[in-house]
Amino acid sequence: MGALDECHYSEELENGVDLGGCGIEGEPETLAIEDAVRVLLQGLGEDINREGLRKTPLRVAKALREGTRGYKQKVKDIVGGALFPEAGLESKVGSAGGAGGLVIVRDLDLFSYCESCLLPFQVKCHIGYVPSGQRVIGLSKLSRVSEVFAKRLQNPQRLANEICVALQNNIKPTGVAVTLHCSHIHFPFFEPTLFNPNHQGWVKTLVKSGSGVFEDEKSDIWTEFLSLIRFRGINFENSVDKSWCPSQTSIKTGASDSEMIGAISTILCSLGEDPLREELIETPARFLKWLMSFKNSNLDLKLKRDCLTINGDLSSEMNLPFWSQCEHHLLPFQGVVHIGYYSSNKVNPVGKSILQSIVHFYGFKLQVQERLTRQIAETVSSFLGEDVMVVVEANHTCMLSRGIEKFGSSTATIAVLGRFCTDSSSRANFLQIIPNFSSIEG
Amino acid sequence: MGALDECHYSEELENGVDLGGCGIEGEPETLAIEDAVRVLLQGLGEDINREGLRKTPLRVAKALREGTRGYKQKVKDIVGGALFPEAGLESKVGSAGGAGGLVIVRDLDLFSYCESCLLPFQVKCHIGYVPSGQRVIGLSKLSRVSEVFAKRLQNPQRLANEICVALQNNIKPTGVAVTLHCSHIHFPFFEPTLFNPNHQGWVKTLVKSGSGVFEDEKSDIWTEFLSLIRFRGINFENSVDKSWCPSQTSIKTGASDSEMIGAISTILCSLGEDPLREELIETPARFLKWLMSFKNSNLDLKLKRDCLTINGDLSSEMNLPFWSQCEHHLLPFQGVVHIGYYSSNKVNPVGKSILQSIVHFYGFKLQVQERLTRQIAETVSSFLGEDVMVVVEANHTCMLSRGIEKFGSSTATIAVLGRFCTDSSSRANFLQIIPNFSSIEG
Repeated sequence: MGALDECHYSEELENGVDLGGCGIEGEPETLAIEDAVRVLLQGLGEDINREGLRKTPLRVAKALREGTRGYKQKVKDIVGGALFPEAGLESKVGSAGGAGGLVIVRDLDLFSYCESCLLPFQVKCHIGYVPSGQRVIGLSKLSRVSEVFAKRLQNPQRLANEICVALQNNIKPTGVAVTLHCSHIHFPFFEPTLFNPNHQGWVKTLVKSGSGVFEDEKSDIWTEFLSLIRFRGINFENSVDKSWCPSQTSIKTGASDSEMIGAISTILCSLGEDPLREELIETPARFLKWLMSFKNSNLDLKLKRDCLTINGDLSSEMNLPFWSQCEHHLLPFQGVVHIGYYSSNKVNPVGKSILQSIVHFYGFKLQVQERLTRQIAETVSSFLGEDVMVVVEANHTCMLSRGIEKFGSSTATIAVLGRFCTDSSSRANFLQIIPNFSSIEG
Repeated sequence: MGALDECHYSEELENGVDLGGCGIEGEPETLAIEDAVRVLLQGLGEDINREGLRKTPLRVAKALREGTRGYKQKVKDIVGGALFPEAGLESKVGSAGGAGGLVIVRDLDLFSYCESCLLPFQVKCHIGYVPSGQRVIGLSKLSRVSEVFAKRLQNPQRLANEICVALQNNIKPTGVAVTLHCSHIHFPFFEPTLFNPNHQGWVKTLVKSGSGVFEDEKSDIWTEFLSLIRFRGINFENSVDKSWCPSQTSIKTGASDSEMIGAISTILCSLGEDPLREELIETPARFLKWLMSFKNSNLDLKLKRDCLTINGDLSSEMNLPFWSQCEHHLLPFQGVVHIGYYSSNKVNPVGKSILQSIVHFYGFKLQVQERLTRQIAETVSSFLGEDVMVVVEANHTCMLSRGIEKFGSSTATIAVLGRFCTDSSSRANFLQIIPNFSSIEG
């Protein structure tokens, strides 16, 4: 990699910077969440002292408190001092600048927590406002104000309304428009009637909110706003509405663990929420239902088929969906698995359903992606022969719903067994047929 | 907008959260940068007491110090505690999990500051590593370690190398690969030979760095890594290399203001850099050259043409590029202007070059986008008649190189004069012909 200037690296100061903790470690609310997470981990059949889980309670508590820090923020503090005098037109007829010139900020990436099920959801936010009184707001404040409300337990419509009202009250413009394009992870085995195959793994909804001149959704100004955020042709009416969270339409749970339910209620309280607020009453049970999909079974999958060395063709099964739960942060990661192997013409190719079962078996646990990849490869190899290659591509919620907030990033992991390990052309042939990543993107 | 639950909003606590300041306000380094920025503003011919600029020194100081906070961060503090035991294959031949299973994190959005010219540049970062010793690193740490080095004055190749070496030294894996896809704003009037019309406004470069098994760039493992980050077919060799920063290839400046040069050197010192470091010696002069493009001329543009009421067709000039400098943060914003007007067949349509001159005249100032839009509309109207509509679409560096870091967001502002103000179908017709936003995207 050529000559390397290490001077930056060695010059690092002794006092490392606090990365995202923001001093919430040790606070009573944080400790209460940590205790609650320990209850949940035990309820999932996990050993809370195993290495991967030891710090999970603290990680979860920090992520949740940081992800809901909007409860402690004031819009006034953000807007104050960022309203700038800005002239309108001097002598002409029309609207421009600080008197009527529509301002639009597009494609703000946010995430929020779903109040129905406590899972994070992603938001693409677009805001417009019409300045009045010869003043405009600093553009970045539109983003900061949105964050205040996104960093709470929300549903899409309320989030849009709260952003809209806060901007209207604090900027006092002629009007404010907010549209949100929200993506929520599917629940496993979600009713297929609502399942859109084009958005595998994600439930989507579009919501909008308007005040002042944007109160009438049929007005020209709305049309112009939508035109400039390029929603041309998208019909808001067709969008899934109130019941967008898949936890609400899935089958009711039966008996549920009251200690775990209590722990989740404690978490809600510690975040500053009221677990008796109407929208939150069933949240603990819904979150628990999600969580129990990942209960530790203490079973391992052993499949055995008599198969000898196979000199056949490269076979593959691509885009097998999976759901899993990151054991470091108790947050979903979700994506697809690609499996390549060599099969002889004499042996029937293995059914897709068996491979999908293997993927689900190892997905529905507290996991890390590296382990998932290895376990699938080993199990497939145990009955399909030595020559197996597995690629797992995933979106990790923990990469966006904590301090780092890396929207759009994704992770790939690879396991190579047998011939794939030594023969680079086999690997290349398999990698070549992996489709583009779009099938897992939110 | 329907019933609104305001309870969240009114429940906000009294103690607002510090938003991005992180307590650096009032520190000697911050104050030194503020003083330096005042010198620069005065050198630009600005009144440092006018409302829009009053807090600019503090804003610039905070943005710069926050944007270079990597100087104070230690990789060890980040990696420590996030290395997890993870088994490799049990009995099979091959590589998987914590023993050889390639892990890739793709599409991490970063920004950094160019050490050649002090302007921010955007980075799409892809990292791969091959675990060894039966341990893996928490995925988010790859992002956090990258941030440590991105938040310094950099060039793309050194940034890639530093991320690579830091990960190699701290994780001690079998190898690390880093590729960066970097976008740097063009300087105005940059030599057209290097100007790629497909990336209007942006200079791009691809760099890579590898250690361990990734040291050989021709190796299969590099090919596989690149295949999974979908750089298939992209030739790294063709990428613009060392001289990617347009400040280095542009014509040498003549005399320059020594007080302003001194102020920029002070800023470099206050960030923890050595202005005598080889790569930084000419940086103050280069940044000054950029800055002086936006010197206040105290002139206003008056164009007059005899034109009566025009009942002709909608004429338009789309995608006129502009450069400007945000007066709140002394950071670039850059994009395109679309101008619509009604012209009669009897009057010759106005030349594109005149409209482009108007756009540049108002762009090359300390500006805000709302004002730029109004000024262009008013000036165009003064010689093209009453009926003018202007849309400005822009990327604001201040939306990504400070606390909020909203990658991919963009801003649109609109001014409507005369017939466009009253006739919604005129507005709709004009909005309809605005091309997709791709022409300004980085």
